[in-house]
Amino acid sequence: MRLTGFSEVLPGEPVTNRDMAERFGLHEKWLDMMTGNRTRYFCATDSPPSVPKSTGDLAVAAATAALADADVDVASLDFLVLTTASPDHLMPATVNLVADRIGLNDVPTFQLMSGCAGALTGLYTARALLASGLRRGLVIGADTCLNFFPSSGQIEAMSPAELINFALFGDGAGAAVVDADPDGPGLLVEHLFLRTTGMGRKPAQTARWFGVEGAPLLDGPDGPYRESWGEEDYKAIEHHVPEHAESIFKELTAETGWQLDEVEHVLLPQLNGVMTDSIRKRLGVRPEQAVNCVADTGNNGNAVPFIQLNRAMRRIRSGLGVEGRLLVANVESSKWITSGLALRHQNGAR
Amino acid sequence: MRLTGFSEVLPGEPVTNRDMAERFGLHEKWLDMMTGNRTRYFCATDSPPSVPKSTGDLAVAAATAALADADVDVASLDFLVLTTASPDHLMPATVNLVADRIGLNDVPTFQLMSGCAGALTGLYTARALLASGLRRGLVIGADTCLNFFPSSGQIEAMSPAELINFALFGDGAGAAVVDADPDGPGLLVEHLFLRTTGMGRKPAQTARWFGVEGAPLLDGPDGPYRESWGEEDYKAIEHHVPEHAESIFKELTAETGWQLDEVEHVLLPQLNGVMTDSIRKRLGVRPEQAVNCVADTGNNGNAVPFIQLNRAMRRIRSGLGVEGRLLVANVESSKWITSGLALRHQNGAR
Repeated sequence: MRLTGFSEVLPGEPVTNRDMAERFGLHEKWLDMMTGNRTRYFCATDSPPSVPKSTGDLAVAAATAALADADVDVASLDFLVLTTASPDHLMPATVNLVADRIGLNDVPTFQLMSGCAGALTGLYTARALLASGLRRGLVIGADTCLNFFPSSGQIEAMSPAELINFALFGDGAGAAVVDADPDGPGLLVEHLFLRTTGMGRKPAQTARWFGVEGAPLLDGPDGPYRESWGEEDYKAIEHHVPEHAESIFKELTAETGWQLDEVEHVLLPQLNGVMTDSIRKRLGVRPEQAVNCVADTGNNGNAVPFIQLNRAMRRIRSGLGVEGRLLVANVESSKWITSGLALRHQNGAR
Repeated sequence: MRLTGFSEVLPGEPVTNRDMAERFGLHEKWLDMMTGNRTRYFCATDSPPSVPKSTGDLAVAAATAALADADVDVASLDFLVLTTASPDHLMPATVNLVADRIGLNDVPTFQLMSGCAGALTGLYTARALLASGLRRGLVIGADTCLNFFPSSGQIEAMSPAELINFALFGDGAGAAVVDADPDGPGLLVEHLFLRTTGMGRKPAQTARWFGVEGAPLLDGPDGPYRESWGEEDYKAIEHHVPEHAESIFKELTAETGWQLDEVEHVLLPQLNGVMTDSIRKRLGVRPEQAVNCVADTGNNGNAVPFIQLNRAMRRIRSGLGVEGRLLVANVESSKWITSGLALRHQNGAR
């Protein structure tokens, strides 16, 4: 599989930590220190018509941009994959509304429900579809927080776990065009793996949907309370994500025979700026090797690895690291999934 | 791809049209005449511990039964696929909780968000994964209405479109073990296709999720009203599903060279008993060819084709139609997808 076109989409204007403080009453210094994230982006229902307002809007924009980047026509696609944890509806699958809006018909579509490992799950699926005989496809990762978050007036009622999530996450999308033909410019997949590693382990991240009746009231020792929309075991994430990242890079370097300190583009897990930098140091990856985005984009889930790939390609095309090698590690803490991807840039035929 | 093990799971006791009349104030005769469905099953939070209460519970039961039916160990699985329109959470994906509960680890997992075409989307994905080098997998379809429906006290506030949905749907799951090795007993895939056919067409079925704040209040001419959790354009479904079903069977018979009137097991779309029988008559399929379940199970979405496959296999194993051929047609109206599957039963080596 060869990745031939890339994109990233961030809705509207960046929301700074000062904005978060002013709009939601969060502590600016706490955001700076705790997360290391400086900005993030949020879809808003009242933004101008041209600004994406939903997972579907983001996905359409990312699809269009990736097709343009690959310089291929939508009619040449044999399949479409969307990975997301935040679909616009339960039915129809958002991927099918996206297909319609980009002018794609008569092809199989796949919407994968996933968190931080979603982008590589999408690429893994795409590689299998190409192995089965399809020739070209598009894989999109998109997420929005719009439906997860209470309106600003309810921030005071949020639990610490909810607040942390709110502070870490953002909205966005990215996409990649994939091609079965290994000859041509782009990123050639050298190795790709994906596996659950959650046996018997508690999910460290949970997001509920509550159906028509909204969050149920539960009985508690101090009277009824609203069930949390989401939970995050930040301590478990802080403990396990770095060690999983390390084992992923070990496996990728063992499989490719590449030395980590010689790899031009290292795409680290992007939970937040602080943790990403701590993982970088632990692995001995130099700052100029790392392709990070989270400090600027926030953690936008399924979009993140596509945005990192897009930024790595910008770097490669600008002349830094031409013919370079890329390693990608994703860790999903929601129910513990590890995945890794090794890519080699080529300018033309293999 | 060869399908080697099958299962179906229906939670608790059948809910009759009389039960629906007593519990929810629906009209028994209207249910009889309008839907042709006699019973359906619903997960209930207050049912005994052994009875499935969620999509995850149903999926675990279906997985366990299909593995037993194929007589294979869970440790021999290379991947797990779950298709559903009604996940228990947004994160983690229900498939990963199911993997844990059945004792499966270290494999890629896939949760496909889909409606009536979900089962064949799952099998299409599985076929690609096998083509990419994996050897054996499990595909589960499961759906629950639990989170979609208001509690019984709110039935009076339901719109006609919501009432129709409520009357048609039910909960359930089914699964199939799939194997890359074509030699051995089971159902061998002769042809499988899946494609969107929704360009420019309005979704005929919609189910929303509303995030933490529940269904929003919208401004209407008569004051604010609660946005509907779901909509169904029954007229569009009634009009288009039969014609899509006809074209699917035409394509399957053209591809296989089989005559529809000679095919032993015809698995028709199962929106409801009335429509399924009307499609059967339109196609000239004899009652003894048809493998139906909806009149007893209700339309349980992603579970339906697995339940039909399970019942066809029961028929085959009981001596009727040994070495038989199966044709499956699925039409998804949520955003119009058509899919078809041709299978040939074999007792041993190819």
